[in-house]
Amino acid sequence: MKQQYVYFFGGGMAQGRADMNNLLGGKGANIAEMVNLGLPVPPGFTLTTELCNEFNKRNREYPKSLEKEVEVNLRRLEELAKKKFGDPVDPLLVSVRSGARASMPGMMETVLNVGLTEGTIPGMIAKTQNPRFVYDAYRRLIAMYSDVVMEKAEGIEPEDGDSIRNQLEHMLEAVKKKNGYVNDTELSENDLKELCAAYKVKVKEVLGAEFPDDPMKQLWGAIGAVFLSWNGKRAVAYRRIENLPDDWGTAVNVQAMVFGNTGDKSATGVAFTRNPATGDNNLYGEWLINAQGEDVVAGIRTPYAINKLAKTDANKDLPTLEEAMPKLYQDLMDIREKLETHYRDMQDLEFTIEDNVLYMLQTRVGKRNGPAAIKMAVDMAKSGLIDKDTALKRVKPEQVEELLHPMVDPEAEKLAEKLGKGLPAGPGGAIGKIVLTADKAMELGEQGKRVILVREETSPEDVHGMKPAQAILTSKGGMTSHAALVARGWGKCCIVGCSAMEIDTKAKTVTFGDKVLKEGDWITMNGTKGVIYEGQLDLVEVDPLSHKEYRTLMTWADKVRTLKIRTNADTPEDAAAAVAFGAQGIGLTRTEHMFFGDRIWAMREMIMAEDIEGRKAALRKLLPMQRQDFTGIFKAMGNRPVTIRLLDPPLHEFLPHDDEAQKEMASRLNTTERRIAAKAESLTEFNPMLGHRGCRLGTIYPEITAMQARAIFEAAADCWAEDIKVKPEVMVPLVGTVGEFENQKAIIDQQAAKVMDEKGITFKYMVGTMIEIPRACLIADQIAQQAEFFSFGTNDLTQLTFGYSRDDAGTFLPHYLESKILAHDPFQSVDQTGVGELMKIGTERGRTTRPKLKIGICGEHGGDPKSVWFCNSIGLDYVSCSPYRVPIARLAAAHAALANGHSVE
Amino acid sequence: MKQQYVYFFGGGMAQGRADMNNLLGGKGANIAEMVNLGLPVPPGFTLTTELCNEFNKRNREYPKSLEKEVEVNLRRLEELAKKKFGDPVDPLLVSVRSGARASMPGMMETVLNVGLTEGTIPGMIAKTQNPRFVYDAYRRLIAMYSDVVMEKAEGIEPEDGDSIRNQLEHMLEAVKKKNGYVNDTELSENDLKELCAAYKVKVKEVLGAEFPDDPMKQLWGAIGAVFLSWNGKRAVAYRRIENLPDDWGTAVNVQAMVFGNTGDKSATGVAFTRNPATGDNNLYGEWLINAQGEDVVAGIRTPYAINKLAKTDANKDLPTLEEAMPKLYQDLMDIREKLETHYRDMQDLEFTIEDNVLYMLQTRVGKRNGPAAIKMAVDMAKSGLIDKDTALKRVKPEQVEELLHPMVDPEAEKLAEKLGKGLPAGPGGAIGKIVLTADKAMELGEQGKRVILVREETSPEDVHGMKPAQAILTSKGGMTSHAALVARGWGKCCIVGCSAMEIDTKAKTVTFGDKVLKEGDWITMNGTKGVIYEGQLDLVEVDPLSHKEYRTLMTWADKVRTLKIRTNADTPEDAAAAVAFGAQGIGLTRTEHMFFGDRIWAMREMIMAEDIEGRKAALRKLLPMQRQDFTGIFKAMGNRPVTIRLLDPPLHEFLPHDDEAQKEMASRLNTTERRIAAKAESLTEFNPMLGHRGCRLGTIYPEITAMQARAIFEAAADCWAEDIKVKPEVMVPLVGTVGEFENQKAIIDQQAAKVMDEKGITFKYMVGTMIEIPRACLIADQIAQQAEFFSFGTNDLTQLTFGYSRDDAGTFLPHYLESKILAHDPFQSVDQTGVGELMKIGTERGRTTRPKLKIGICGEHGGDPKSVWFCNSIGLDYVSCSPYRVPIARLAAAHAALANGHSVE
Repeated sequence: MKQQYVYFFGGGMAQGRADMNNLLGGKGANIAEMVNLGLPVPPGFTLTTELCNEFNKRNREYPKSLEKEVEVNLRRLEELAKKKFGDPVDPLLVSVRSGARASMPGMMETVLNVGLTEGTIPGMIAKTQNPRFVYDAYRRLIAMYSDVVMEKAEGIEPEDGDSIRNQLEHMLEAVKKKNGYVNDTELSENDLKELCAAYKVKVKEVLGAEFPDDPMKQLWGAIGAVFLSWNGKRAVAYRRIENLPDDWGTAVNVQAMVFGNTGDKSATGVAFTRNPATGDNNLYGEWLINAQGEDVVAGIRTPYAINKLAKTDANKDLPTLEEAMPKLYQDLMDIREKLETHYRDMQDLEFTIEDNVLYMLQTRVGKRNGPAAIKMAVDMAKSGLIDKDTALKRVKPEQVEELLHPMVDPEAEKLAEKLGKGLPAGPGGAIGKIVLTADKAMELGEQGKRVILVREETSPEDVHGMKPAQAILTSKGGMTSHAALVARGWGKCCIVGCSAMEIDTKAKTVTFGDKVLKEGDWITMNGTKGVIYEGQLDLVEVDPLSHKEYRTLMTWADKVRTLKIRTNADTPEDAAAAVAFGAQGIGLTRTEHMFFGDRIWAMREMIMAEDIEGRKAALRKLLPMQRQDFTGIFKAMGNRPVTIRLLDPPLHEFLPHDDEAQKEMASRLNTTERRIAAKAESLTEFNPMLGHRGCRLGTIYPEITAMQARAIFEAAADCWAEDIKVKPEVMVPLVGTVGEFENQKAIIDQQAAKVMDEKGITFKYMVGTMIEIPRACLIADQIAQQAEFFSFGTNDLTQLTFGYSRDDAGTFLPHYLESKILAHDPFQSVDQTGVGELMKIGTERGRTTRPKLKIGICGEHGGDPKSVWFCNSIGLDYVSCSPYRVPIARLAAAHAALANGHSVE
Repeated sequence: MKQQYVYFFGGGMAQGRADMNNLLGGKGANIAEMVNLGLPVPPGFTLTTELCNEFNKRNREYPKSLEKEVEVNLRRLEELAKKKFGDPVDPLLVSVRSGARASMPGMMETVLNVGLTEGTIPGMIAKTQNPRFVYDAYRRLIAMYSDVVMEKAEGIEPEDGDSIRNQLEHMLEAVKKKNGYVNDTELSENDLKELCAAYKVKVKEVLGAEFPDDPMKQLWGAIGAVFLSWNGKRAVAYRRIENLPDDWGTAVNVQAMVFGNTGDKSATGVAFTRNPATGDNNLYGEWLINAQGEDVVAGIRTPYAINKLAKTDANKDLPTLEEAMPKLYQDLMDIREKLETHYRDMQDLEFTIEDNVLYMLQTRVGKRNGPAAIKMAVDMAKSGLIDKDTALKRVKPEQVEELLHPMVDPEAEKLAEKLGKGLPAGPGGAIGKIVLTADKAMELGEQGKRVILVREETSPEDVHGMKPAQAILTSKGGMTSHAALVARGWGKCCIVGCSAMEIDTKAKTVTFGDKVLKEGDWITMNGTKGVIYEGQLDLVEVDPLSHKEYRTLMTWADKVRTLKIRTNADTPEDAAAAVAFGAQGIGLTRTEHMFFGDRIWAMREMIMAEDIEGRKAALRKLLPMQRQDFTGIFKAMGNRPVTIRLLDPPLHEFLPHDDEAQKEMASRLNTTERRIAAKAESLTEFNPMLGHRGCRLGTIYPEITAMQARAIFEAAADCWAEDIKVKPEVMVPLVGTVGEFENQKAIIDQQAAKVMDEKGITFKYMVGTMIEIPRACLIADQIAQQAEFFSFGTNDLTQLTFGYSRDDAGTFLPHYLESKILAHDPFQSVDQTGVGELMKIGTERGRTTRPKLKIGICGEHGGDPKSVWFCNSIGLDYVSCSPYRVPIARLAAAHAALANGHSVE
């Protein structure tokens, strides 16, 4: 059997189907489907993606059989259209459009009005009684064809270097200027007729070839140009960015032209079967009378609303399609019903009305925002259109995020002046006045003023100013810098690493390129995208719990998922917020943040102590504070498990490094500046990330571990006394050898026994470890003999597995991502090949010695959907993420469970 | 059958054998063996190590059967000795000595003269006609017994807190003082008799118990005390240090006493069957007439030489045993012959002559130094006593090291004042005057003065002063710090991390505790042990190639080993030295060291360049210098393979960081200090180890890779033109992703093609990578698809696998080693459990995609015998180490091959 390269559609029947997407492209397959559904579609035929690949492989040669196949299909098209291609009396015109598997908007070429020639123009004029329309169509054909087919596809180089497209455009502008026209619509029939003639002369002059006057030559030229555009510069670049394969190829759709611009009984429009911004179950869209499709999109004329519900401020006084063409509107409503029932999803439609006849030009699954996606999915599941599993799959985890933070109004964003771009470290939108110090941020923030803290980078000493700020913006640091970590924990808008921004703290200015802003100037930040704007843009506020369908979807997600979701929370407030978002426990409480503020003085006293007795005295001051911290968190979490990590950062982080602050410290601790400077110096490390921190501190200073363990157990005992049955899980950080863990566990167990004895209360607790050192994964079987749980600290594990410092990787990581040396940022999504392999090894080996070992993840990756999926696939028990990512993780976990064959019902 | 706890020996027959070492301890087993060989050994019996464990487990209770068993053996002993234990007429006295599997010198207890009582003393006096001798023996028994058995073993606390041992000692001193005696020997019969009486009163007074006057009570007390001393403080601490297990237990040897101090026909001595310092095949030893064993060891009297060959300056005029007792000397020579033939190894003997009768008290394999070990092994193999495989096994790789560096004279070391201790970073000994700057070291060094460069730490800018220095001493840094790396490469004596040393560069002093030394003062360093001494100690010079047996042994090693040995060398001189030591190629040439000195200006120009053109211009200056470097190394290596690593360290290492130097640089490069400071600042990293270095540099600045590749290939082409068939292996450092390697390989291959084309010469080369990032091990299968060889960079791999910065680990690593959290320093010997596991994974996975992948190791571990063994076991093709460790690695590789069943013949 000869291979079929051409698939016909029209007359109520098509050779293709929607599921032939790969062969016919998205557009072609869906047109075929619409035809089979009996919808009014202009007839035509699709040349397959296989043909595209053949053509490009054979160096622009078609298979021999093709000419005949096109001929046969063209004849069939003529029969249905009741017009003949190239007929001087009533000529058929066709559009030649690309259509790949996935939408690649604007990346490939289109040629319209193919078939207009000196020979067919008179017939067209006679038939339409509209010579201006015909010459306008001819002008567009010449311009498009000479550009797309002659210059680009056939590779004819223009004479004087400027493209034929620009040169023709200049001619058009010259005519308009000469006549004092502003819009193209003012061009008269005669202007256009003369322009067409002049265009053809110019084409000959510039490209050295005639614009073809043969309809078939035009057709073949257009088909070839579309196929070639698959390998055009823009298309290739787009595929690189979107990770699309080169061997897909594009299909070509040749279709009878219909015109929405033949007069007042004609129109064109785009519509969504449901509102893509809210999810409401109403037809939504825009249309224009007497216009072409591109006019709706181009924004030259204000499009009309399709019905009352779709009206906006801009078009509230303009006629709707429902009012202007009620019969055709009803037809469209029927089609909407038919398509949604058939596709079981919201559709994005293109239609044209030519002389009171409705034609469907395209249907495809419509894009939608997060809240709309959720509402549609739940509505459709409730109405029985889809099942609950499908509803869950319809919503991307990232879309849930849109419900959790106020967003910059997308419309306002389009018009706003972009100041700069950084890494999107904390999602949502924020508006505020620039402030350059944490103190000022706190001062103004407490007065209820909206401020954005702008710094080179932040440190734990800035936290008091970060909390009241609307957002945080830094010029240095990466996705896991201090600012990013803290902001994400709070669900606060944050952009980091905006390297083009320069801060002058003396002059109190912030410079973006040429633009100089002062402290106090307003800026707006889109933390989801990482973009900074000048001035105040509108924010769209959201509240997930008021979104009824969100609540429903989440119950379904919880029903199907097997992975537990915990949260990373360091305060009772964060813990309570996370519980409200559905957290089932705490996977990581960092204790170091508890030693700043006033408590830093006891901490510094401990660091400066000459001996163990001095350290113990300082630690005794910290004990009641720590106990209070833990009691608060335990109470917020009730009976849920709470994992508390022992002190992790190197001690020098608690000492001041500038003279002024060292002076203050000296006077406060009654010692000399010299001693403090010497201590700070002695604690300085070449590579602090690889230095004296984590359990290496607790091993050298066992009294710190003892104090923290005692505080945890005293708090637990107090809770149990109040009948709050807390289950503390004490986590030893940075374990790389069994000896370290044994050493720390002995201290912790001893404190537990002492506290239980003192308080006369028994309670359960666990001692486990953070797995964040590559070696720990390799010896996980040994560690698991002692440790009752593991929690993967994927931030540090990623740093060590790659040998990247997250604070320094900015020098090469962006380049690695851009040049695809890295497929994605391993600090955002778990590197499954490397880091993930170590996690797998750690999980497998850990469970060889302790089969029921509880294993979770508490790195930043715990809130990343792809990483959640991966964690589920390697058999972890839970993921832990910042409170504001808990819903995202819940949905991602549900997706993973669905993929594993689980079902909501 | 009842368990046997007592093994008899004597009368030409013993129940034990040498191979019953575990049960009878080393001393007991070898005594039994000597008895079986027919040697003259005082009879006795051994109580087993199993009994020791039983006794300690049962809380100082013996099995019921034991009393009877001891009784039987004691009777047998009496029969052979022809004396009775406790007999008032001719009493038998016994010694009760410990003896574990391994020698634990001085760690456990001994009680001599057991059986002397008020009842047996008269008989002893009558028999010996020497009352002074008898009372002296009695005095010693009371002192030993009250200390070892009563106070220590039975745990009786002395009344006034001071130990009974000290109190008795004071009494002795008092008597001597009263009578004006200097030596114990001046004490008269009467003095001793009175002392014995006073001792017994004192024991009663202080310990509240009588010194037992019953021989059997004495015997059981002594046996129990020896068993208990296995768990004594000193013994336990010793086992911790030496990694000996606690469950070995000690045996107890009860043996008829013989006395070397009964008069001029008695003597005692120790001997080695060959000279333990030179390996010469002569009896070597010391003896004393009319003396006890401890007198020879204690150093109170100058021991005599055993024969003419053993004479020293100290005893050259004293009689030898050969001269004084020729018959007995001949007996000893016969015994020597018998024992060496039997044990097939050099023996360390103890003997006593009582009234012209020779008794052997102990034999064991003798300790020996490196040169002696080599000579003995080769001599014995040549004489047929052992085979070549055994000869190779007899020499520890570390012993070869003694041949490669001058050593501090061990005798001088014993007497010298220790200033401090650090990490033994470069072996051998050195003497020099303290200098505190590299410039001064160079200046004085070039004048031929011997100096030691003393610094907090060193950097590449100090190299010019390190080379001419005799040794390097730093207060900071670890085994892989800059100083250690450089020194080891040169085989230079070096001690790092001597944290007790304080350097005051202004006052030009170096302080060790209270001791203040000035610049110019002499110090001596033992780099093998890491000890620093004040003043000038003697050095022992060595030259391995002049050691005939060394050369022979190495040919045998090379014959049997399968692992190849390469060297790490950055200069033609190092390369040539390594070849002389037997290196088969270069495994690592670091190129960064080549950019210091004058060349640093071109390097700095490159770093400061504003754009790629500026960088290329600077690199063009570096190209001819690099080419020259490589040509030199290639020529030194001839046809051997040479692996060259591309630039690895972060660029900021090439910039000056202090104002003065920045000023110089600004004027020299015709730019501003501000620009230089800004550049240095922008290159500063939080964690440079994890920052912008290795192939991350080459990826961002491909022109650097291109220049280095071109220099390598131009040098190779030049060599081929001279018919030197070099095989360059270009090594890309710090690869963690396939993309990085592909990127760099493309640049390298392009340069190779260009150079071959330009020069019209074709040559083979390889492009491979250093495996030093944990992720690289995990994705080794992917990397091996592109890379033609792997070389494990175990320094960085260890840092990353453990998460330790070698520059910072000094804060906790020593504690980890001391408290056994780590069994050994992973920077010295490959951590087989963690890092080694990654190496295994990397090797296995790499060879799944490239079965013949060449794999080596070029980290510091390549010269560590245990690591060499490990590399052999996981199937590496070669190890690469610093030139001075090549012989060590050759022998270690031979040992590994022997263990795998290979044989020299």
